[in-house]
Amino acid sequence: MLPIPVKFKLVSGTAEGETRLTAFDKAILRAGVGNCNLIKVSSILPPRCRPDRGIVLPPGALVPVAYGFITSDVPGEVIAAAVAVGLAEDPASYGIIMEHSGRVSRAVVEAEIVRMVEEAFACRSLPLKEVLVESTEHQVVKLGCAFAGVVLWY
Amino acid sequence: MLPIPVKFKLVSGTAEGETRLTAFDKAILRAGVGNCNLIKVSSILPPRCRPDRGIVLPPGALVPVAYGFITSDVPGEVIAAAVAVGLAEDPASYGIIMEHSGRVSRAVVEAEIVRMVEEAFACRSLPLKEVLVESTEHQVVKLGCAFAGVVLWY
Amino acid sequence: MLPIPVKFKLVSGTAEGETRLTAFDKAILRAGVGNCNLIKVSSILPPRCRPDRGIVLPPGALVPVAYGFITSDVPGEVIAAAVAVGLAEDPASYGIIMEHSGRVSRAVVEAEIVRMVEEAFACRSLPLKEVLVESTEHQVVKLGCAFAGVVLWY
Repeated sequence: MLPIPVKFKLVSGTAEGETRLTAFDKAILRAGVGNCNLIKVSSILPPRCRPDRGIVLPPGALVPVAYGFITSDVPGEVIAAAVAVGLAEDPASYGIIMEHSGRVSRAVVEAEIVRMVEEAFACRSLPLKEVLVESTEHQVVKLGCAFAGVVLWY
Repeated sequence: MLPIPVKFKLVSGTAEGETRLTAFDKAILRAGVGNCNLIKVSSILPPRCRPDRGIVLPPGALVPVAYGFITSDVPGEVIAAAVAVGLAEDPASYGIIMEHSGRVSRAVVEAEIVRMVEEAFACRSLPLKEVLVESTEHQVVKLGCAFAGVVLWY
Repeated sequence: MLPIPVKFKLVSGTAEGETRLTAFDKAILRAGVGNCNLIKVSSILPPRCRPDRGIVLPPGALVPVAYGFITSDVPGEVIAAAVAVGLAEDPASYGIIMEHSGRVSRAVVEAEIVRMVEEAFACRSLPLKEVLVESTEHQVVKLGCAFAGVVLWY
């Protein structure tokens, strides 16, 4: 099987670009994950996976990431992206990751994403201890992107 | 290289949620793959990959899955998702996986997905032995999701 | 961690199909990557990753690929897809991959994708040595797909 990640880090970034893809590229670069190959995953924090702000990703590495993003070419529009990690009361349990984005403020996506984590724990009858949130907001100049992700690493 | 899967399992599930992502989360949970990190792949059954209903996925594992899903917030609407695995006459050959979903009944996506597998075998001039299908249907209450997938495992 | 690829190959293909997914399946087959499990990645060429036209992908392998594609069911419409790899002046540096597609000619996506690579290098203050481009164009008969990708391999 593929190795199960043992560390995680919440990241976010925003940027303007000439195209949607280059705006995304710059946003993930500002989030500190722009020089890797992101592999999108849905969306469980493995048991005993520990937070580590010091994760260093080798350039070109294949990096499992749960992420959300939004791009917009409407000047003046506010866009926001958030990720959240719900940690269980039981320290041996997995956790749950949610991602969210929208043409709304950071406060709105933050409130929504906490509700999403709560719903995911409730439907598993899993007691929720704590929710870690990372979010970012951007007012579009010409073409902007907001990105938030949870990097899973080794 | 990444290890090539040797077992597979067809799964499906439906659910209602407060948001599109939590409806998806609950649908994959009912399908038995909700506590993993799904990595979307397109869509070949490796040679000698065997069906195994007893696959147990460790929480948080990175799991290659070919899948289709659909969400809807139209109350009363019927949605359906299906996956199919086409097995070749030659037991040493790879097989082909197709996924399909729509705002239609389960019978409709099932008929369509079998045609898709037949087309994929025909264009490879590969004799088709058998098609395994897994599908599910859901009538939306408020916000629903239908999910079907082929888990590839070790 | 997941192994970092050491070889790459640019590929492209177009096809008609009865459905969007089977058109995609045939397009990737013509591109020479149709019998694998493509894992979409974004989009860095690892340092010291070398071009190799002779890469042979085992059937069913999990293959990291940066790719773009477009499908269309508008008869007569021209669609095109391109990928580009920007190589840095410094031979020890990573490179950057971009993908692009549209309802335009091959010449248009090629010009655009070179600008995208230039923008990605500029925002990293990374001197650009060379841009490798692979592109393809298709005039839709009934339902067509154009695909271009950069295979990362071992």
